Amino acid sequence: MLKGYLSKKAKIIDKALNKCLPLKSQYPKVIHEAMRYSVFSGGKRLRPILVLMANDVCGGEQKDVLPLACSIEMIHNYSLIHDDLPAMDNDEYRRGKLTCHRRFNEAIAVLAGDALLTRAFEIMANYGYSSNIISEVAKAIGTEGMVGGQVAELVEQESLHTKTDKKKEEAINYVHLHKTGALIKVCLKAGAMAAKAPKRKVKALENYGQNLGLAFQITDDILDIKQDKGVFGDFTYTGIYGINGSREIAFGLIEQAKEELKVFGRKAKMLNQLADFVAKRKK
Amino acid sequence: MLKGYLSKKAKIIDKALNKCLPLKSQYPKVIHEAMRYSVFSGGKRLRPILVLMANDVCGGEQKDVLPLACSIEMIHNYSLIHDDLPAMDNDEYRRGKLTCHRRFNEAIAVLAGDALLTRAFEIMANYGYSSNIISEVAKAIGTEGMVGGQVAELVEQESLHTKTDKKKEEAINYVHLHKTGALIKVCLKAGAMAAKAPKRKVKALENYGQNLGLAFQITDDILDIKQDKGVFGDFTYTGIYGINGSREIAFGLIEQAKEELKVFGRKAKMLNQLADFVAKRKK
Repeated sequence: MLKGYLSKKAKIIDKALNKCLPLKSQYPKVIHEAMRYSVFSGGKRLRPILVLMANDVCGGEQKDVLPLACSIEMIHNYSLIHDDLPAMDNDEYRRGKLTCHRRFNEAIAVLAGDALLTRAFEIMANYGYSSNIISEVAKAIGTEGMVGGQVAELVEQESLHTKTDKKKEEAINYVHLHKTGALIKVCLKAGAMAAKAPKRKVKALENYGQNLGLAFQITDDILDIKQDKGVFGDFTYTGIYGINGSREIAFGLIEQAKEELKVFGRKAKMLNQLADFVAKRKK
Repeated sequence: MLKGYLSKKAKIIDKALNKCLPLKSQYPKVIHEAMRYSVFSGGKRLRPILVLMANDVCGGEQKDVLPLACSIEMIHNYSLIHDDLPAMDNDEYRRGKLTCHRRFNEAIAVLAGDALLTRAFEIMANYGYSSNIISEVAKAIGTEGMVGGQVAELVEQESLHTKTDKKKEEAINYVHLHKTGALIKVCLKAGAMAAKAPKRKVKALENYGQNLGLAFQITDDILDIKQDKGVFGDFTYTGIYGINGSREIAFGLIEQAKEELKVFGRKAKMLNQLADFVAKRKK
């Protein structure tokens, strides 16, 4: 049931993203091609779907929150394009396709990332989302959020071998809560805010998002190990806690996430199922 | 008189920028150091001063528009950091100092640019500027504006030798109107909008900004030639029109810019002086 729900929502997001992005034929073509190449390269649309789900559980109308959801997906893709650059992770492939800088070139990849970030804010402003929502999104992806996490990863990785286990734990928690967690968290928060939800509901969804985001990252680390992509010594949960320890932490976080949903009663069925799915996912 | 005015305003901008940017001591330090290193590296603050001037001539209060002016200066610096990257212009120095990627490293430079762009939107949202203003700024710096100009320069430069003079002229006008012109133009427009100026005044300032921006770029090209930094064959006005032809075009644009100011009467004294200064500047 969740699977059908997610794929239905993903299609709705894709259709809306298509409207949010400039046409390929628009001059200068190559930048619009690069933006679309990256955005339409087979992502699961988890983040924008979370925006829709949070909005829905707070009684919002889907059409009113779609542009916000698309903005967040554009932001996610900007961060992936820049993260893949030679100066950063130097990845050649993502989701089985050449990364943006490999398919086009590095200059176009830098600018495509910049353009997606800019377009995200343009869309949010065009649709008249409140200053509070725009500010929350910006905060979640700046140096107090996503960019802060990316920088912390660069900095802490260098000195990882000199750290005590406790310091390693602190560092890895910081990185994941910021690098991936902050954006996932703001999906829930902004989605709820767009439905004008009362504070306690916004807060409950925010907490759900934080726990879900961290659990998502930990299961990512576990899956990487199983697929031989990760190394135990890496900057990962599995490197510190092992596979079983990491799995236990992830299950604990999922329980906490689901606890937060109680305030919504039966309306939160899909969010509950999604939490279970994250803990048990196989890819 | 203009010189004193500009240096007084630049100091006000610097002080406000200092408040807009995260402290160097904030974790993760290196990103905040890089953001501040780039923003406080001796820029003239022309763009934020234009925001203040447009706001002032429309009867706005300086304190209300300072955060907007700072946002635009942060955006300008983000664009310079990314433009200087090895994959783009590969510049080692800017304003006599090492560029951001040379002083720090390439990953930090990419992220510092990203963070300045994000912070600019956060500041605009935090201070509650209208959606219209935020949307105009975003449009001016996306693929219909600044990024579009940067991409057009990359694309057109490759095929420059195959172009007719007319096509060269069209290409260079597109690049300059977008790469530098769009941001300068939106300084005037957004400054006027923040003062809730009537449409005809906003339009007059926008036209002033467009002419001023283009004249500024042309005098840049002329100064580069005089300082032996430019080549006639480059993607420059001097390459197409020669020094005298370029100077004539710049003077014509400045006259048009000043013409637009008539609607403001004597209040536009400083904007008039600034236009003359741009045409005659020696550096």
